[in-house]
Amino acid sequence: MKIGFLIIGSEILDGKITDLNTKILSEYLRSHHEEIHESMVVRDTKSDIEHGLRELFHTHDVVITSGGLGPTKDDITKETIASFFGKKILFHPDALKTSEDNYKRFHRTFPGKDHTYSYLPEDFSPLSNTMGFAPGFYTKHQNKFLFSAPGVPREFKRMIEDHLFSVISEKLEKTTFLKHVIMRTKYIPEEKIFQEVDTLLWDKLSHYGEVSSLPNLMGVDIGVKVRASSEEELEKKVLELHSIFEKSPLHKNIWGQGRETLEEKIIKLCNLRNIKFGFAESASGGLCSHRITGVPGSSQSFMGSVVCYDEKIKEDILGVKKETLLNHSAVSSETATEMAMGLLEKFHLDIALSITGYAGPGGGTSENPVGTVFIGKAKRGKPVEVQKLNLFGDREILKQRFSQVALFTLLEEVEKFTSSLS
Amino acid sequence: MKIGFLIIGSEILDGKITDLNTKILSEYLRSHHEEIHESMVVRDTKSDIEHGLRELFHTHDVVITSGGLGPTKDDITKETIASFFGKKILFHPDALKTSEDNYKRFHRTFPGKDHTYSYLPEDFSPLSNTMGFAPGFYTKHQNKFLFSAPGVPREFKRMIEDHLFSVISEKLEKTTFLKHVIMRTKYIPEEKIFQEVDTLLWDKLSHYGEVSSLPNLMGVDIGVKVRASSEEELEKKVLELHSIFEKSPLHKNIWGQGRETLEEKIIKLCNLRNIKFGFAESASGGLCSHRITGVPGSSQSFMGSVVCYDEKIKEDILGVKKETLLNHSAVSSETATEMAMGLLEKFHLDIALSITGYAGPGGGTSENPVGTVFIGKAKRGKPVEVQKLNLFGDREILKQRFSQVALFTLLEEVEKFTSSLS
Repeated sequence: MKIGFLIIGSEILDGKITDLNTKILSEYLRSHHEEIHESMVVRDTKSDIEHGLRELFHTHDVVITSGGLGPTKDDITKETIASFFGKKILFHPDALKTSEDNYKRFHRTFPGKDHTYSYLPEDFSPLSNTMGFAPGFYTKHQNKFLFSAPGVPREFKRMIEDHLFSVISEKLEKTTFLKHVIMRTKYIPEEKIFQEVDTLLWDKLSHYGEVSSLPNLMGVDIGVKVRASSEEELEKKVLELHSIFEKSPLHKNIWGQGRETLEEKIIKLCNLRNIKFGFAESASGGLCSHRITGVPGSSQSFMGSVVCYDEKIKEDILGVKKETLLNHSAVSSETATEMAMGLLEKFHLDIALSITGYAGPGGGTSENPVGTVFIGKAKRGKPVEVQKLNLFGDREILKQRFSQVALFTLLEEVEKFTSSLS
Repeated sequence: MKIGFLIIGSEILDGKITDLNTKILSEYLRSHHEEIHESMVVRDTKSDIEHGLRELFHTHDVVITSGGLGPTKDDITKETIASFFGKKILFHPDALKTSEDNYKRFHRTFPGKDHTYSYLPEDFSPLSNTMGFAPGFYTKHQNKFLFSAPGVPREFKRMIEDHLFSVISEKLEKTTFLKHVIMRTKYIPEEKIFQEVDTLLWDKLSHYGEVSSLPNLMGVDIGVKVRASSEEELEKKVLELHSIFEKSPLHKNIWGQGRETLEEKIIKLCNLRNIKFGFAESASGGLCSHRITGVPGSSQSFMGSVVCYDEKIKEDILGVKKETLLNHSAVSSETATEMAMGLLEKFHLDIALSITGYAGPGGGTSENPVGTVFIGKAKRGKPVEVQKLNLFGDREILKQRFSQVALFTLLEEVEKFTSSLS
């Protein structure tokens, strides 16, 4: 089955927002062994939407659209789809019911039965929206499917989850089983991996499916898309692939597998092992804490952080000595040490990480230019360890990289904790 | 001039990463009064890339591609483009030079003149990459342009900025001037704006160009795409538009204009007025600090924050009373008050914001379910003010909404500060 995705939204082409629905759709499809073959973003005009529909229906069995279903005058998806299929728009009792239910759910007054949400193209069926107001709809036409959902990511996601596969189930192929094996590596650039560290790796992996290499924050994600004709064959191939990675010299740089994020992995292990941690964040400006607290259940092991831009806060709250700041500056191994140690004690932690550096664009010295970061790691009863790195990028990327190195360091420590306890 | 954007990347269709280059390209084009007409994402296969090129060249004057220029075997953009145009790939002395320069810049050893980066399709010209290693390239073919850049966003961005307009300048139209007027509103839902608050607004705005309404975090961005045949006419239309908004009852809910972010606006005003601020973040988990520290120059007025997930940290560091936590719980107006007051004093701030609530999925009470947040605002010599909101969404969205309300609250306060001083 070939699935095409039509994103209707001038706001994306105008850079006002970033498309998040491709990721949502692809993650959902993957769990059903399917994938997006192609996607297009078109403007909210009749001719552009029609062009997109024509183009995608030409080469796909299922076309999913997102966007343009709202109540304002720039929302013309429904009208355009109706005219594309040569259908009239009619009052639809089920659509009225769906829409009334949506309003009830949020305790908002239903605007009345003549509202646009009560109307649908002839022969189309409504789809309930449990996260918002605008209903979606679908139809089958010449053995192909059209499925239209709102563009707001949380509404799009829920509608896909609630309805997509029951709508298109008759077209699902049960003959191919698909799994993305992803190995997430750190610290070695893409070229070096395949040309120095393990020159045969790519070819070995290629026996099992399409290989991809995706540079990621301070690392590379290596993916293999494995296809098989049965669950058993798929499982066997995946096991063989894992053993290739285990035997590779790259192995010690693999920090994770699959789609589990760094922060999810950290929280899972810390919650399991009852490890309490926190951050003394200067250069990362709160990003480490934000990433960690994005994980449900993080409050069990993440106690808190101090974001200490001001030197006075480093002194007053973390206990960094005035002389240390004067003699070594705030961006130094000595300050990183005292920040981590201060946080460990004040917050009663098992592990404290400190991050101090220059995120730019201003600041920096000839010895420690913008991009320099010191990451301190304190744990109970042990001397603080500090690593210094010189990284590259603008302020946004540097903050991301600083936080990534801090989280890599935390994970390494948490894994040691685990093995020393087990 | 019609510009099409071809994104070559299975990793986007597979949901491994989110496309950021559409936004980068559109923001760059806008500053030159141009826009992306359509974009497509295709997989890294020869047939899919060829299909995308054919489709976009059919209806566009300029096609920009991103992705697939790296050194690994899944990078096939250059070969596919060569065969699409019926060109051989040849050794190219300028490409070698460009590539050597790229390696020198990062103090890395050049892999040798036979490296893939020294080769280009016949009649193509190389484009230097000042943020990475893979050179881009361009060509002119039947009065249309092809411009190929790497997919890594920072490399893509720099290559576009360095080269795009000098390459396609001969096709630039000087006869149309374009400006997006964007008014950013808060707290009123989309439907209510146009059906209750100002029922004539949409039609009035439509006289000046294409109107759009984009729901955003806790608000709606209303855009008008104004076109004119001279700079003077453009300026006049924009002034008239502004006066429509000033006379609208919606006016008091407009918090900003254009693309300036909430955090940028806050930092600009605080730096100007010498206001020192910080956050006591529980439910927002560091996101307020992360957003603020993303702004260059934020260290002038943002002093720091305490991320206080643990109750002990609320007590020890912020001075929240044990009895307050016991009698009212950590998610209460009383705790929000003491958090804000504690931070104001300990951090020597002019304004301190506190955020405590339930981000879910667990937690919450019948009185204060998941989505409840208390935002406290403390300033010198005034009683703390607390607002309570009941918001909606999953953990990620709730964190975003909590931080947005905190930043709205901060901006309101900072604007009052401004007017009381001026």
